[in-house]
Amino acid sequence: MEATTFILFGATGDLAKRKIYPALYNLYLDGKLPKAFSVFGLGRRELTGDAFRANVEQSLRNFSRREANDTASVRQFLDAFRYSVLDIGRTEDYLKLLRLVEQREQELGAAPNRMFYLSVGPEFFETIADNIKASGLGSADGWKRLMIEKPFGHDLQSARDLNRNLSRAFEEDEVFRIDHYLGKPMVQKLEILQSSNPVLQTLWTNRHIANVQITANETVGVEERAGYYDHVGAVRDMFQNHMLQLLMMLAIHLPNNHSTSDEVRTKKKKVMEALMPVLKEDVARSIIRGQYAEGEINGKPVVGYTSEPGIAENSANDTFIAAKLEIDDYFWRGVPFYIRTGKRMKEKSTRIVIEFKEPLNQHALTEEESRVPNLLVFEISPNEGITLQLNTRDPLHKGEFKPMHIDFHTSQEDVPEAYENLIHDALNGDPTFFAHWDEVELAWKWVQPVLDAFQENLVPLRTYAAGSYGPVESDELLERDGFRWRFDSKHEQQEKKEGTHYAYHVNH
Amino acid sequence: MEATTFILFGATGDLAKRKIYPALYNLYLDGKLPKAFSVFGLGRRELTGDAFRANVEQSLRNFSRREANDTASVRQFLDAFRYSVLDIGRTEDYLKLLRLVEQREQELGAAPNRMFYLSVGPEFFETIADNIKASGLGSADGWKRLMIEKPFGHDLQSARDLNRNLSRAFEEDEVFRIDHYLGKPMVQKLEILQSSNPVLQTLWTNRHIANVQITANETVGVEERAGYYDHVGAVRDMFQNHMLQLLMMLAIHLPNNHSTSDEVRTKKKKVMEALMPVLKEDVARSIIRGQYAEGEINGKPVVGYTSEPGIAENSANDTFIAAKLEIDDYFWRGVPFYIRTGKRMKEKSTRIVIEFKEPLNQHALTEEESRVPNLLVFEISPNEGITLQLNTRDPLHKGEFKPMHIDFHTSQEDVPEAYENLIHDALNGDPTFFAHWDEVELAWKWVQPVLDAFQENLVPLRTYAAGSYGPVESDELLERDGFRWRFDSKHEQQEKKEGTHYAYHVNH
Repeated sequence: MEATTFILFGATGDLAKRKIYPALYNLYLDGKLPKAFSVFGLGRRELTGDAFRANVEQSLRNFSRREANDTASVRQFLDAFRYSVLDIGRTEDYLKLLRLVEQREQELGAAPNRMFYLSVGPEFFETIADNIKASGLGSADGWKRLMIEKPFGHDLQSARDLNRNLSRAFEEDEVFRIDHYLGKPMVQKLEILQSSNPVLQTLWTNRHIANVQITANETVGVEERAGYYDHVGAVRDMFQNHMLQLLMMLAIHLPNNHSTSDEVRTKKKKVMEALMPVLKEDVARSIIRGQYAEGEINGKPVVGYTSEPGIAENSANDTFIAAKLEIDDYFWRGVPFYIRTGKRMKEKSTRIVIEFKEPLNQHALTEEESRVPNLLVFEISPNEGITLQLNTRDPLHKGEFKPMHIDFHTSQEDVPEAYENLIHDALNGDPTFFAHWDEVELAWKWVQPVLDAFQENLVPLRTYAAGSYGPVESDELLERDGFRWRFDSKHEQQEKKEGTHYAYHVNH
Repeated sequence: MEATTFILFGATGDLAKRKIYPALYNLYLDGKLPKAFSVFGLGRRELTGDAFRANVEQSLRNFSRREANDTASVRQFLDAFRYSVLDIGRTEDYLKLLRLVEQREQELGAAPNRMFYLSVGPEFFETIADNIKASGLGSADGWKRLMIEKPFGHDLQSARDLNRNLSRAFEEDEVFRIDHYLGKPMVQKLEILQSSNPVLQTLWTNRHIANVQITANETVGVEERAGYYDHVGAVRDMFQNHMLQLLMMLAIHLPNNHSTSDEVRTKKKKVMEALMPVLKEDVARSIIRGQYAEGEINGKPVVGYTSEPGIAENSANDTFIAAKLEIDDYFWRGVPFYIRTGKRMKEKSTRIVIEFKEPLNQHALTEEESRVPNLLVFEISPNEGITLQLNTRDPLHKGEFKPMHIDFHTSQEDVPEAYENLIHDALNGDPTFFAHWDEVELAWKWVQPVLDAFQENLVPLRTYAAGSYGPVESDELLERDGFRWRFDSKHEQQEKKEGTHYAYHVNH
């Protein structure tokens, strides 16, 4: 791996503590950091180097998936960390930083490859990028890369503005846009599962697939982010980025060999281009807009959205969205993609369910009520797993069917976290699992009529009880097509109960 | 369920003790015996009813999958049991039995439905059947059924003779020929798994399947059956019946609805008719004949076959056979079926492995050595399970593959045993999982040239070390076609080792 200086804006922030430092530490333990590696933490606050390293060490103890007990190993890791005060608007601070960075690179005899990680609000992106350019921090004799986090804009226009501004200082291939869903191990596997397994390739078409269901449900409410969230809502916070990225990762069709980063991104763009656009006037037909009312989560009463501290009493913000999308290409024409995401839902679960078609003889089927559809389920979080649901004979009741679950689960500890995967990829210059500007722009383009329709109140705001599976209209969206949401725990438990004597669901 | 009198020839024999009584007891516990149900145990020995019932009770304690602790329940079960001395050749004994049976039926007010279970050597079948007919035992105003066990003949001619003799007293639809492999839960599931799961139906053709491997390996040697086995060998003992039945059950293509017994048997016959015959002169090309030499089983030295007590020193009997078969029909043309069965093998395992085709771009594949073929494995015994083997990304070594196993396993205690399933089916008159005469005859017809070629020494006898996977020629049989035996524990462990960090194989 090439020598790298990791320059972190927002080094005292929450994301740095919870995700970035633990990720770097675990990469370090796995021998996945460059030999010549330095971190420059930047912040407004005055901090000594020792105080900064103590903070980093504390964050490892609090948030690392592996314990930070080995003092020698932690000390060696922390040796790479420096702190520097920086006022984002002061050009002199960047010049001072440049001198420190160059000095450190000389000490290590390291090439001046610099990774700029902007763990700060997007309103600062432009200023920072311009100063990196102006100060010469980004014009050394090595490579420079920019890592940024969502939100990439608030709507199509602001996203385009942001991108234009950043592009003054960084080329597209130098920008690594983090969508942490793309870093999740199961999401990273989708591509290779599909491209290297003939059995799945055979099944991956509209000839065999009835519908695809992509769910990202949370049990939490708005928490400390009320002020921010009330201006954003589920569409911007989850749907435009994470949900559409999951859709792209599932729907790409890759050539049968080890696919390159370019291929993956080209195919993702093709999926977005084939996504049938929705007109503002038609949004209400295929999209359900929801907001949680009071209810119960895990037996505890919780307030409704508009009673949350920091939320406007008359807020019409969406905390839930369910949508039906269609991809008009050779593989997916006629296969509805149902997407659903919400806060204060019954259970925390991110998953993709592929429901396979029933054979033509539907009449025979309706009489066999115990028979279930074939499903392939990718569980993304909180647990990682794959389940194939088949029908089998009930050995105790002849002539009846039992659902059978063929499962794969990993234990969570063993698996690198999203930020480890993503930082490692960025250090290696591999952009496969980062959002290309084309994808981001096409996603905003698709979403813009939805935002407009919500803004103009063309879509009724449905309420749902906290702790439910969302508004009834979300169920009706699928029922209209003869389907229903699959693998929600209530259904699963029902199916499991029916299959008590026989079906065996592995859990870890 | 209809009232039934269960008339058991060979009531003091080993099979009755180990299998039949425990099976009846477990059916009783599950409420799966008719309300009016009597058992008449028959044997040469004089035995009081109480002594007989004590023997039955002992067999429950020794061999039932569920404990026979509940005294009241065991007593009630044993109430149905009567014993009668019977000399198989004496017509008077049958007449006496008829009177006892009729008397019991009158006591119970039960219809005279009679199940004759012949748990005796096949040399007695003809005599017993004729006496059943002559005595009037089989001509009452109810139904009569005959359950018999292998061997059904020693070759094609003797099997035809046996069948002709039996048919004087019983119609084909009254004969329930037990092949206990057809009673095993996973084998019973094959049909419904295929006919009620669109995902499997899609894959079930020569377009997607590269080859099928059917294995039934034992670790035991000849044990107490030396004298018998030395005149029979693996072809007659395992291949002609169990192995070809497994092939039929896997290869049938059923319509997409709840298939009837007739359909299953018609389709099985079609498979046998489509099986490409082998000429005596060509047997050596596609069939490996093996005999075990001394070796080691689970760390213990064991003698070679010809040193076993009761085996002729110069015996050329086959204790192993590996064969390549082809089904020349629309679905299976071009898909080799490899069948292998042997004694004193490294591990006890009965399973079917379906290996799926690799896509056309073979060149890319050979460079990716860590990639494994997609497999669907039905484990039949000693454990029951289904495994789907896929390729996934190695999260710790980018660009490398890991095999991933998606598993289903049942715990053994929960599952009815083969004899329970079969006796229950026969009591209900369901012949689905019994061998029809057509199948038996076609199987002997296919096997006859093999027997002739062995007899005339046209096929070399290969030796293999006890505790191995059979003669090297068995491996070469597949290597010629570019394949290898899959899922032997040595290979599986190797694959598991490669996948240590990630692949997780569920075991119970």
